[in-house]
Amino acid sequence: MAEKIRLGILGGGGNSLIGELHRIAALINDNYEIVGGVFSSKWEENIGFAEEIGLAADRIYLDLDSMVAGELDLPESERMEVASILTPNFLHFAAAKKLIDYGFHVICEKPMTTTFKEAKLLEAAVVKSKIVFALTHTYTGYPMVRQMREMIKDGLLGKIHKVDAQYYQGWINTLIHDPEKRKTTWRLDPEKSGISCCMGDIGVHAFNLIEFTTGLQVKSILADLNYLYPDNKMDIDGTVLLRIDEYTKGIVRSSQIATGEENGITISVYGEAGGLKWEQENPNYLYVLSNDKPMQVYKPGHAYNSVISLDGTKLPPGHPEGIFDAMANIYKGAARAIRGEKYNDGEFPTVKDGVRGMSFIEKSVESHLKGNVWVEIEN
Amino acid sequence: MAEKIRLGILGGGGNSLIGELHRIAALINDNYEIVGGVFSSKWEENIGFAEEIGLAADRIYLDLDSMVAGELDLPESERMEVASILTPNFLHFAAAKKLIDYGFHVICEKPMTTTFKEAKLLEAAVVKSKIVFALTHTYTGYPMVRQMREMIKDGLLGKIHKVDAQYYQGWINTLIHDPEKRKTTWRLDPEKSGISCCMGDIGVHAFNLIEFTTGLQVKSILADLNYLYPDNKMDIDGTVLLRIDEYTKGIVRSSQIATGEENGITISVYGEAGGLKWEQENPNYLYVLSNDKPMQVYKPGHAYNSVISLDGTKLPPGHPEGIFDAMANIYKGAARAIRGEKYNDGEFPTVKDGVRGMSFIEKSVESHLKGNVWVEIEN
Amino acid sequence: MAEKIRLGILGGGGNSLIGELHRIAALINDNYEIVGGVFSSKWEENIGFAEEIGLAADRIYLDLDSMVAGELDLPESERMEVASILTPNFLHFAAAKKLIDYGFHVICEKPMTTTFKEAKLLEAAVVKSKIVFALTHTYTGYPMVRQMREMIKDGLLGKIHKVDAQYYQGWINTLIHDPEKRKTTWRLDPEKSGISCCMGDIGVHAFNLIEFTTGLQVKSILADLNYLYPDNKMDIDGTVLLRIDEYTKGIVRSSQIATGEENGITISVYGEAGGLKWEQENPNYLYVLSNDKPMQVYKPGHAYNSVISLDGTKLPPGHPEGIFDAMANIYKGAARAIRGEKYNDGEFPTVKDGVRGMSFIEKSVESHLKGNVWVEIEN
Amino acid sequence: MAEKIRLGILGGGGNSLIGELHRIAALINDNYEIVGGVFSSKWEENIGFAEEIGLAADRIYLDLDSMVAGELDLPESERMEVASILTPNFLHFAAAKKLIDYGFHVICEKPMTTTFKEAKLLEAAVVKSKIVFALTHTYTGYPMVRQMREMIKDGLLGKIHKVDAQYYQGWINTLIHDPEKRKTTWRLDPEKSGISCCMGDIGVHAFNLIEFTTGLQVKSILADLNYLYPDNKMDIDGTVLLRIDEYTKGIVRSSQIATGEENGITISVYGEAGGLKWEQENPNYLYVLSNDKPMQVYKPGHAYNSVISLDGTKLPPGHPEGIFDAMANIYKGAARAIRGEKYNDGEFPTVKDGVRGMSFIEKSVESHLKGNVWVEIEN
Repeated sequence: MAEKIRLGILGGGGNSLIGELHRIAALINDNYEIVGGVFSSKWEENIGFAEEIGLAADRIYLDLDSMVAGELDLPESERMEVASILTPNFLHFAAAKKLIDYGFHVICEKPMTTTFKEAKLLEAAVVKSKIVFALTHTYTGYPMVRQMREMIKDGLLGKIHKVDAQYYQGWINTLIHDPEKRKTTWRLDPEKSGISCCMGDIGVHAFNLIEFTTGLQVKSILADLNYLYPDNKMDIDGTVLLRIDEYTKGIVRSSQIATGEENGITISVYGEAGGLKWEQENPNYLYVLSNDKPMQVYKPGHAYNSVISLDGTKLPPGHPEGIFDAMANIYKGAARAIRGEKYNDGEFPTVKDGVRGMSFIEKSVESHLKGNVWVEIEN
Repeated sequence: MAEKIRLGILGGGGNSLIGELHRIAALINDNYEIVGGVFSSKWEENIGFAEEIGLAADRIYLDLDSMVAGELDLPESERMEVASILTPNFLHFAAAKKLIDYGFHVICEKPMTTTFKEAKLLEAAVVKSKIVFALTHTYTGYPMVRQMREMIKDGLLGKIHKVDAQYYQGWINTLIHDPEKRKTTWRLDPEKSGISCCMGDIGVHAFNLIEFTTGLQVKSILADLNYLYPDNKMDIDGTVLLRIDEYTKGIVRSSQIATGEENGITISVYGEAGGLKWEQENPNYLYVLSNDKPMQVYKPGHAYNSVISLDGTKLPPGHPEGIFDAMANIYKGAARAIRGEKYNDGEFPTVKDGVRGMSFIEKSVESHLKGNVWVEIEN
Repeated sequence: MAEKIRLGILGGGGNSLIGELHRIAALINDNYEIVGGVFSSKWEENIGFAEEIGLAADRIYLDLDSMVAGELDLPESERMEVASILTPNFLHFAAAKKLIDYGFHVICEKPMTTTFKEAKLLEAAVVKSKIVFALTHTYTGYPMVRQMREMIKDGLLGKIHKVDAQYYQGWINTLIHDPEKRKTTWRLDPEKSGISCCMGDIGVHAFNLIEFTTGLQVKSILADLNYLYPDNKMDIDGTVLLRIDEYTKGIVRSSQIATGEENGITISVYGEAGGLKWEQENPNYLYVLSNDKPMQVYKPGHAYNSVISLDGTKLPPGHPEGIFDAMANIYKGAARAIRGEKYNDGEFPTVKDGVRGMSFIEKSVESHLKGNVWVEIEN
Repeated sequence: MAEKIRLGILGGGGNSLIGELHRIAALINDNYEIVGGVFSSKWEENIGFAEEIGLAADRIYLDLDSMVAGELDLPESERMEVASILTPNFLHFAAAKKLIDYGFHVICEKPMTTTFKEAKLLEAAVVKSKIVFALTHTYTGYPMVRQMREMIKDGLLGKIHKVDAQYYQGWINTLIHDPEKRKTTWRLDPEKSGISCCMGDIGVHAFNLIEFTTGLQVKSILADLNYLYPDNKMDIDGTVLLRIDEYTKGIVRSSQIATGEENGITISVYGEAGGLKWEQENPNYLYVLSNDKPMQVYKPGHAYNSVISLDGTKLPPGHPEGIFDAMANIYKGAARAIRGEKYNDGEFPTVKDGVRGMSFIEKSVESHLKGNVWVEIEN
């Protein structure tokens, strides 16, 4: 195995769950070593957290700028090679842009930016550079999602006519119905979260899964969102009609008021010759439907799976892996790219996925505000 | 037990599955005795089938008119009391109207009529008369669907904010992709099937389940349908956005090209305080969700169920009943009404459900053809 | 269709669930007409119930003897042809024996008799006669159980090495822990129920499913039963080890104190080349396992199913049928046999199944009482 | 957070899956730092693997003896504190014994030893010392298994009357039916694997889960094993009857020829007042049954869960964690013990579990060979 890749982390300190998810994912396949970063904008918390997770103080920085400067001062053989951006959403763009410009690879949490315009600027920067940019649409890292993509690519479904992706949660119920809480929670504040809550936070994952698994691009959408209360400024539920082509249609269904739902992501794709269904809460089952044969249930780790699916499974069949392992698969793919090794398309989402995701979010809101009309997704 | 109700049947002869479903359902609770009818417009088939199922020839009629005349000639104590209409859709209206006008109770397959206008005329006729009119939206007969309705009525969910009903099948794939077959199948011929295939045949069930379980009325809809081929005249897939009120929204998702799906009806209802989910293919499970407690799984036959749910269960818990039993429950409710016994709202769908269903179908097509705009459901 | 078969019923009156199950099952496929019987040993209840279900009084009899005499007085073309025995267990033998001796076909609830000796006498009587004897092991009537049998017969599993059948219920908890109730419930009184409660009532179904689906015969068993309280006279739980041959083994697991279980019957059969699994509470799914291919899920009504499975399915895929339909399939098979039509082995359990079942019950108790030793099942 | 614990690893090099499982589990909660060890008895492989996973060569040792010697030479603040034993089974005892004697904490794979006698010697050594000894019965690390234990401890089930644990796999089919392969595979060679294949490798996990979740001790067992071929020396399937007390019974069902089963571990526990069921392949669901209330489905990460269950969950509800996370929970508990922090009983299995497991294995074989008689489990 090549030497470990030197990884820095921006954000994700304290009790941050996203921080824990990324750190563990980075460690799982022995590819990365965390060398430093900025875990918090408050110095005490930053340095305290670094110590807690066993990092030396000398590569913990006050902020992004000093990190970039500090690392560039180090010899190339010691310098941080890649940074994971786990900061609040509105800081993603500036951080990613700076890192790219100074030659660092980037692993970025979604949403990639807060606007489509920023997304395009970032894309241009990535294209111009030689850096690897991985966007952590975590769910694409599940072996059975990858299997789905490969089976579709291999033509199992024939021409696709229908896609239906759901992302239902119920957690916002505890905030949204309380007039005080809904005024003060950052998720519902456009200044902090961008123009959309439900589509921006979760709907975009469902959208991404459709394009990831089918390899198709959604051409236009019509959205109907729900803000639930007159004084609430952001969508917390919505349905988006999709057109891939004149006769291939679909739906993104997304909600944060689907009471009792936890992380209810599902995707169904139907083609002339077959269908495929997957549910995130039971991620190790892929349901393969056909017009005339019994349903098959694919599970990870079997010889019948595709190479990219097997590459994302560590243990034999029947030993359930989960979301940490899915994220680790994305880190694994990014490591290959960073090292210049061969990797397959689909091992990690790219800046292109980020561009399309930002267009989906902005266009969903636009469609809704214009009175539920069709608008086109931009590239 | 009171004497058995004398039942006539229109249509449903030969290998008709719907005929078998109704006959068995009628017999299951010992309420009905089949006395005669018209099983086919061809006399040989008609009389042959009647003999096959053990009916005496003297009450098998050439057509509806002779049946009405013949039965009116009989003394009231022997006369047919109710007739089940299982004929092709385009004949429903005329048959039902005549039966009502002559004082027969009616059990009618869906769609109730082929147009909204006919539905309104039928409604007027029913209202003016004293007859019982039951529309066989079979799925409302399942004990757990009834349980869902009762729990919502009792306020378990608090204010409802989101509904999502699906009816996915894949059977039309075997026809639709073949240019010859799609030209010649009656389901895809507007002359024979009315203006809609997918919404008219199955989408309307999903719509009905939403109104049945929640007790709410959908105010307006926006539909996007899929005709799949330029030469195909009827929708075979579509999504319909629903507005119940400004902040209560929903979806009807319906497809006949969802490859490999069999009879995939699901309904999810989410309110401020809870959620309820049900799937037709596993009809004896009702999933009860809450913001903070473990999910509960309700099953039929338990003391914890509502009266109307228990009334629809014949055996102890763990002995699965199915769709024949669901239909039998509708016949049971209709029998009570016919006998003038006390029954609960919801024991059978009524002409009102038929009116709303026909409006849903027509308005779905209208919304689609106008370019996916909002249109109002009429009463 | 041939004329309907004239069916009489012994027992099953009042609120009897088993009575309802048999009556509905008899009616479902238009094969039988119920002509009379003895529904209760109390005349008022007997005649009252007959009236309730719409039977004429003249063929309701005081007891079995007068029924046999009365029916024999009728011309053969009107005479009862078959009788269903739904009386308490200890009356099965005498009733069946008399009916057989007088030339009536018999449909008998299980357990067939109360002792193995009686079972053998009954078998001899059946063999000597020309009558059809059907034992209602209802679960064999499910289409997917029949499919399982056919797939095994066709060699899908190769040599079978392991069988595991479960029948878990929890209902006796409400009686067994109460010293008064457990003394007075008839199920726990050997005088009324025979020597075994758990094995006799439910374990025997699990045993039967093993022999029915595999076509193999269990050679010897070793049982460990649980009586739970020193003053309780009958087993309410137990595990029985099975030997089919030296290297093919298995288990019957049975319990009435499996708290919260409803009617938890499962069967798994594993062979050199594949495995099959089925669960009664979701009867329309058959899980087909292999060493190296994805699991398949068979469902009823598809062209890929065997003839005998399809014969037991009335509606298209996705329309769940249940236990009434399973019982109706057994009645359908018996009807064919009674009419002298061609039918397939397995369409209904026979007196032979009853003999083996009674041996299983007696030998389970014998093995347990002798200190959990191996004993042989007799034919 | 305290400083990281210095961990050494014995075995688990190369493509070893168990090695990967332990390394990742050790890293997941930031408690351990891997400092060295012996990954293979072949030096080239040993040092090569160490380099591959990024370890410095100076603490990679030739063998256990030199490791112990080398580490004792280091100052206490740098010295390895704990070692994970992942070697072939027959080496566990000697390694563990030496490590304990020299004051190293031990994390040991199961089976703990190859004989009960060794297990007792190890227990004595542990008791005499102050070291922490953790046995990696991985499945006890799942949050829902821990929840099960806590609910039983809290009395939810009342007095327990029935336990049923299954461990079904089918993988040995690919070897056992081939006369050549079954002679040469190490798993089937008593010299290398101990006296039992099926009970020793997997049955013991099922046994452990029963004692872990219920807190009860199995008193005696009766085993029937299957060797499948006359020339095969070890069990590859078997059922073990359990007696916990006179009226509390149970079963361990274990197989490696359950064709198509992957890692099918299930446990069901039934008591007077309730039942609990869990399946390893869907580890995030715990089914809670009662005599009269709807079944509840507990999932991880909710406030309604017990402290020890929540402690083993890193992400919010709906984000599935898997077997790496379960193993990580055991490492987490061991870390607390090693640091002298407070921890709860059940956070990791101990030498006591190893002693009972070894007795279960030996006694299963003894019972079988004596002709399926009852034998007592020893402490």
